[in-house]
Amino acid sequence: MKLLVDRKNRKYVVHDKEFHTEKGVIPEEDIKNAEVGDVLETHLGKKYTVIEPNINDYIELMKRKCSIILPQDLGLVTGFTGIGYGSKIVESGTGAGSSLLFFANIIGPEGHISSYEIREDFVEIIKENIAGTDFENITLYNQDVTEGFKEEDNSIDLVFLDLPKPSEVIEDSYRILKTGGFIAVYTPYVEQFQIVSKVLGKTGFKHIAIREGNVRELEIKNNKTRPNSRMAGHTGYITFARKM
Amino acid sequence: MKLLVDRKNRKYVVHDKEFHTEKGVIPEEDIKNAEVGDVLETHLGKKYTVIEPNINDYIELMKRKCSIILPQDLGLVTGFTGIGYGSKIVESGTGAGSSLLFFANIIGPEGHISSYEIREDFVEIIKENIAGTDFENITLYNQDVTEGFKEEDNSIDLVFLDLPKPSEVIEDSYRILKTGGFIAVYTPYVEQFQIVSKVLGKTGFKHIAIREGNVRELEIKNNKTRPNSRMAGHTGYITFARKM
Amino acid sequence: MKLLVDRKNRKYVVHDKEFHTEKGVIPEEDIKNAEVGDVLETHLGKKYTVIEPNINDYIELMKRKCSIILPQDLGLVTGFTGIGYGSKIVESGTGAGSSLLFFANIIGPEGHISSYEIREDFVEIIKENIAGTDFENITLYNQDVTEGFKEEDNSIDLVFLDLPKPSEVIEDSYRILKTGGFIAVYTPYVEQFQIVSKVLGKTGFKHIAIREGNVRELEIKNNKTRPNSRMAGHTGYITFARKM
Amino acid sequence: MKLLVDRKNRKYVVHDKEFHTEKGVIPEEDIKNAEVGDVLETHLGKKYTVIEPNINDYIELMKRKCSIILPQDLGLVTGFTGIGYGSKIVESGTGAGSSLLFFANIIGPEGHISSYEIREDFVEIIKENIAGTDFENITLYNQDVTEGFKEEDNSIDLVFLDLPKPSEVIEDSYRILKTGGFIAVYTPYVEQFQIVSKVLGKTGFKHIAIREGNVRELEIKNNKTRPNSRMAGHTGYITFARKM
Repeated sequence: MKLLVDRKNRKYVVHDKEFHTEKGVIPEEDIKNAEVGDVLETHLGKKYTVIEPNINDYIELMKRKCSIILPQDLGLVTGFTGIGYGSKIVESGTGAGSSLLFFANIIGPEGHISSYEIREDFVEIIKENIAGTDFENITLYNQDVTEGFKEEDNSIDLVFLDLPKPSEVIEDSYRILKTGGFIAVYTPYVEQFQIVSKVLGKTGFKHIAIREGNVRELEIKNNKTRPNSRMAGHTGYITFARKM
Repeated sequence: MKLLVDRKNRKYVVHDKEFHTEKGVIPEEDIKNAEVGDVLETHLGKKYTVIEPNINDYIELMKRKCSIILPQDLGLVTGFTGIGYGSKIVESGTGAGSSLLFFANIIGPEGHISSYEIREDFVEIIKENIAGTDFENITLYNQDVTEGFKEEDNSIDLVFLDLPKPSEVIEDSYRILKTGGFIAVYTPYVEQFQIVSKVLGKTGFKHIAIREGNVRELEIKNNKTRPNSRMAGHTGYITFARKM
Repeated sequence: MKLLVDRKNRKYVVHDKEFHTEKGVIPEEDIKNAEVGDVLETHLGKKYTVIEPNINDYIELMKRKCSIILPQDLGLVTGFTGIGYGSKIVESGTGAGSSLLFFANIIGPEGHISSYEIREDFVEIIKENIAGTDFENITLYNQDVTEGFKEEDNSIDLVFLDLPKPSEVIEDSYRILKTGGFIAVYTPYVEQFQIVSKVLGKTGFKHIAIREGNVRELEIKNNKTRPNSRMAGHTGYITFARKM
Repeated sequence: MKLLVDRKNRKYVVHDKEFHTEKGVIPEEDIKNAEVGDVLETHLGKKYTVIEPNINDYIELMKRKCSIILPQDLGLVTGFTGIGYGSKIVESGTGAGSSLLFFANIIGPEGHISSYEIREDFVEIIKENIAGTDFENITLYNQDVTEGFKEEDNSIDLVFLDLPKPSEVIEDSYRILKTGGFIAVYTPYVEQFQIVSKVLGKTGFKHIAIREGNVRELEIKNNKTRPNSRMAGHTGYITFARKM
């Protein structure tokens, strides 16, 4: 996978084959030999810079049929659960695969992430999205997650849930988590985290914390500084807990 | 490194030697053989559970002489810059090493992080903090970062700055970043990000975005739900930009 | 009522009699004759400036046995309900009387506010707090508000509720409100506003809006600007609705 | 002034003359005799309910050529400065007159508000907007406020400024304020409140506080509760200070 950027900062994911643009073609060989920082040119003279591809670029450009979890919320999960290189993660549902790919990129070849998605139409898109990457640390299950995780007991560092009724799989999450492992449950609604935190407590989870992250951008125009007048008022609540 | 938790959820980092507690001793051999989930006992009967150690546990327990960047802000940087397994990172200043260790844990053995800290007394503590981990992907420089980064041109995925005057090293950051790489500058004050974003623009950085993240915890007590009455009103602004 | 301020900006409510301080006495006559802007002196030479008394000064200094609603929340109610000179208000519970006095100060002699408080010990304090003012537009009832408001049908501009179970008096609030009048219900908890907004809807109220106001202070020290690091994360939710 | 509401909750300000709607006419006499709660009908049978008019209704419906200060910000000023019945207020600029009318409604016939607006085209609209009300406590000056307030020394309870360069009139504001009186300066930009708070300090003002208020609405749909996904990220900063 390579990432090209035109003069208007529009980004394009390209693979090692001919790249057709609205203003001419870049030959396969140019793409194959291109290194980060190079400037490629179509036969009609349109220029593209090759940039270091970033997982967020890929997620931004990939196919989707549903809304995706924003970078700030994936960052919150990463920040508070301390996952990293080599972590074993299980998540459900997969949606378009944004959290799947974001986490796969962090945990690397020594890590592994299993993702459970019940909807077949989503799974088709996710497979395509995974195929565009080089990740070999992903297992995708087209399965109703309430039938049970396929993972072994005490084997997982993080269970990440983004489901309408996450409480149904909390007990099974507890089973597969290592002692010290984390669960993080993303829910848009108050009623959801109320049930989730109650079930987490009953199941034996500790350090239950419900967090809501907000990011505000600031702007400087003509030497005048102010927060943007519009911001996301709410994305979702994330309930964290730990098997202790 | 192993992590023990007592019945009151107090955490202890232990290494493979005898562990002395206020209520007796756990012998070296017990520690060495301990696996996650095991319960160890001192000769006086106090019990400790072995849990999967998490980088945040380690950071929480390590030595420090200064305030550290909070998990939510490290998460924001991770979320918006998309760093992961194998990323090359440069940061300054190091402080107590919290961002250093957090990032080192993400990028793994194929990644590398160089950290520049001018204060000798900090460096002593950081060395000790690094020594307690297994990371082999860290280079620590006790150096004034304005003398120049030692990294090669176009070699770095993320430069992370937490300095009083970050603008002094923005040009050199641009030099060492790959095309497509990110800079993230953490500053508590408005005046700082105003200068930073101006210098970023002059240096040629694109996609400059100043972000402020806030995390609010919610609590449920006796079936009553509300946000906590106290929250952090401000940690810092993070200015992001990209070499394009 | 007069308000004195010492050199350290400590405020004192005084009435027309001798004022005893820790550093001497100011005679009754000096107090009586004092005008805003004058500087009074005790016989030991301590100086006090007479300032224009403000209702918030009085509320800040008055007796209380419970927490009070903050100025920003009273401001929200005023801002969104548009009450003003001559408005007729009913409120319950009274607490220490902070909202009572704040509203009494706005509606003036042509307006009227009735306040219902069930707890006798609170009522004693409230009476004292009212006695320290010149307001003649207040009626205080030591009564369980669920027994019914004494006000006539269609006579009130604003009903303000700060009760553990506000939904019990919503129907009676509807009765006494003018067509076009507002109800504003202050509740700390999610579960409360959920019930309140449901009952408001069933009772026939329109334009139901649940609002949460947050105020953040910013500080400038040594030419460095930043939001305060601590802020109130939550005071309460205010549910507004209108009889239409 | 009367306020009519149709079945779709659209509001109309009417005065004592024939009211023409898209579906027929309501005769002058019906309007004149109408009382709050009555239902009026056009000759074509369209129904309108007469509701108690609220100052916010009027502000919402009046003419304007510029953005207006939101109810939450007017509420913050009211909440923190404790103005009420009988207060003397001076403000500049007037804009469309929203703060002017909001405050005029609070201070009543015993109070007074002077408003200074430099732009003639605005003044025309403001005069029209004032004419639609019954307020007799307003003086409007079509004047450059930097030429000086016409008010006497030590006579004003609140100076409210919403100007591009408010610092130019801070000294004159100090002059006209009573000891104990407040100034509140509304500014969208950081650079503005930085100058304002510096000049306030030099001028002798005390208790300088820069505040930013945010209001978030919550929604309940199908028994699911969440904050609205969009909110105003920023309206303006309000710098408060007191003449002491």
